[in-house]
Amino acid sequence: MHYTHNFNPTISDEEVFEQIVLEKSSIGYYTLPLQDISEYQEYAKGVKQSNVVVIGIGGSTLGTYAIYKFLKHSKELSKKLYFLETTDPIDIKSKLEGIDLEDTLFVVISKSGTTIETISIFKYIHSLVTIDATNTVVVTENDSKLNLYAQKNGMKSFTIPKNVGGRFSVFSAVGLLPLALVGIDIAEILRGARGVYESFFAKEEEYKQLLKKARFFVEYKNKFNINVVFSYSSRLEGFNKWYIQLWGESLGKIDINQTHQGLTPIGIIGPIDQHSFLQLIVEGKRDKTVTVIKVENFDNDLKIPPVTLEGLEELDYLHEIEFASLINKQADATITSINNLQDIPCDVITIDGVCESAIAGLMFRYELLTSLCAKFMYIDAYDQPGVESGKIILKEKLGKKV
Amino acid sequence: MHYTHNFNPTISDEEVFEQIVLEKSSIGYYTLPLQDISEYQEYAKGVKQSNVVVIGIGGSTLGTYAIYKFLKHSKELSKKLYFLETTDPIDIKSKLEGIDLEDTLFVVISKSGTTIETISIFKYIHSLVTIDATNTVVVTENDSKLNLYAQKNGMKSFTIPKNVGGRFSVFSAVGLLPLALVGIDIAEILRGARGVYESFFAKEEEYKQLLKKARFFVEYKNKFNINVVFSYSSRLEGFNKWYIQLWGESLGKIDINQTHQGLTPIGIIGPIDQHSFLQLIVEGKRDKTVTVIKVENFDNDLKIPPVTLEGLEELDYLHEIEFASLINKQADATITSINNLQDIPCDVITIDGVCESAIAGLMFRYELLTSLCAKFMYIDAYDQPGVESGKIILKEKLGKKV
Repeated sequence: MHYTHNFNPTISDEEVFEQIVLEKSSIGYYTLPLQDISEYQEYAKGVKQSNVVVIGIGGSTLGTYAIYKFLKHSKELSKKLYFLETTDPIDIKSKLEGIDLEDTLFVVISKSGTTIETISIFKYIHSLVTIDATNTVVVTENDSKLNLYAQKNGMKSFTIPKNVGGRFSVFSAVGLLPLALVGIDIAEILRGARGVYESFFAKEEEYKQLLKKARFFVEYKNKFNINVVFSYSSRLEGFNKWYIQLWGESLGKIDINQTHQGLTPIGIIGPIDQHSFLQLIVEGKRDKTVTVIKVENFDNDLKIPPVTLEGLEELDYLHEIEFASLINKQADATITSINNLQDIPCDVITIDGVCESAIAGLMFRYELLTSLCAKFMYIDAYDQPGVESGKIILKEKLGKKV
Repeated sequence: MHYTHNFNPTISDEEVFEQIVLEKSSIGYYTLPLQDISEYQEYAKGVKQSNVVVIGIGGSTLGTYAIYKFLKHSKELSKKLYFLETTDPIDIKSKLEGIDLEDTLFVVISKSGTTIETISIFKYIHSLVTIDATNTVVVTENDSKLNLYAQKNGMKSFTIPKNVGGRFSVFSAVGLLPLALVGIDIAEILRGARGVYESFFAKEEEYKQLLKKARFFVEYKNKFNINVVFSYSSRLEGFNKWYIQLWGESLGKIDINQTHQGLTPIGIIGPIDQHSFLQLIVEGKRDKTVTVIKVENFDNDLKIPPVTLEGLEELDYLHEIEFASLINKQADATITSINNLQDIPCDVITIDGVCESAIAGLMFRYELLTSLCAKFMYIDAYDQPGVESGKIILKEKLGKKV
């Protein structure tokens, strides 16, 4: 008699941590916070154009957009940043109309180097403006065809390490180069990520919190198959989108027992979605966890002025309240609403402020959380066979036309 | 012996339809497509300002934004439309910086008339520009305090009927007034909605399709508790957000047996999310239905030019393909990917083009679908006690401060 099985019992925190430490030598994203960034900083100094247009899709843009969207109104930035990331013709046309292409640096980002959307849009740009080494730079894998193109045309190229997946690449050239180009402090970005890195690998606070959270999500994955991130700042809209890709694409997998696994990410924005999605959380099926993200310090003193509106005097109690305080009280009201129900798991992450290190720390924390959940679930967080199969079908559909 | 129960067996299509017909006399949204819109059109003609700023949140803005976002790059619009809908101070400040407030009409929209976010922002506007009957109009319920304020100040006001809920109000003054103001053809909007209305109530195609779909969603609600709308055009980003509110807030309810019900809406955009969320759909847990929305005619001939890039010659097969064709082939590739799996329900909605009637028809169809699902689920689609309880907690938290 003998057994054949891949049954996957709960593994201990210690075992998972050992696996992560082991993985650090093969999966590249972990140590990105430790890298030398002088190459990006040096290159950025020499760029004269007023606009930066990133051409990319998915993991090539979402992380950069998340950081840029978070910071762009709180920093004095030296250039404007745009993203061309979809094949919707109306979107391409309308975005390009607002940009002086003669005063633009194009950053073409594709890990594989042959992403259909990215190269199609890049070709289209050729029909609008002369493309050469003075206005174009590429970010790709070392041995990709896009890198070959760059070499043939004498263009500067930056490398995405092979072992850094697209959705884990924000702290590589993919994110750091465009962010440095527009004047965001990428040293501070890495400092924020490094703080989380060090705390986690030293088994301090981040280790404790993240392991607890990952374990909970996985142990209750069949009851709570949906994870809602409820961000209380419109600045976090890009973060939400990035989180959705990271979580969905990393954890939606077939496990070692050949069964379908997956935790479904939802990203919503307070207080806007407090007027809608909150109803579903409060009265709907108990299939969700909720993580509320708050910004402690908006560094903004906008207030509700003491203006009495005849007929609306009952709202005068709002006078002199800062909007920053109002939005955080709205977050607190949501947290209280949910906790009062006693059957919806809710955790709160409060980030310090609207600064580079805060958003970077939050993002690195979510990357670690994703890796941990994958270990507890016995799945590979870093591949995406379901996306790849769709790409093959698309090529067939397009190939037939040619 | 006697029974006491509220068990809710599957009811027939005919019974549900009868309930909807009955409901038409008490729930106002059904007959909005039949209304007289000359009042909005007349008022819009007289407005001289170049900018329209809508101050509102949730149901007061999402539908309008959905239609505006869909059409704005395909129409010659006479004015610019902005939305102030969040208490995030950085968002308020940065949005207002780009607008000439002296050349702006403010449209203050609040069904209840005392929405904290809306009135707070409106008060803040008072500190920036003189507010009077020449530059402000309100949209609210007839007997609200906001309407009283408008009367006291001699301002024009438009009425939201009491029996039209916020999230079902896009075809009332809430949506039609701002859209008419910027030059969108609201007669065409209503014509599109009316087409669906007539087909449904005459028990023709829309009746057949919508009942089938609603019944399926409800019968499989415990297996497929997540409904993904996968829209293949960035133009539909606003529609997705509107759908999420409509679906989540209407169907997340306690049913007649006092049990938690709810179908969770997710809105994603192709091809962008084809590079991320598709992985979760294809390999993840079988807890989702997928509705793919395609735009048949983008009315745009942007093409991939025949530019050969040295090193990237393998992508030359893309030459001369229109982007409109590419994005629709990407949608088809996704549909094929999903159908190949044979265990994920997937339906496709193809709308005619980027025009008023197409988006309005789509939205009215989703309103009817929502009402039908609610009937099959024995819940009230039109209330939102979970949101209201959060508002009370917020007032307590704010009240304590005063």
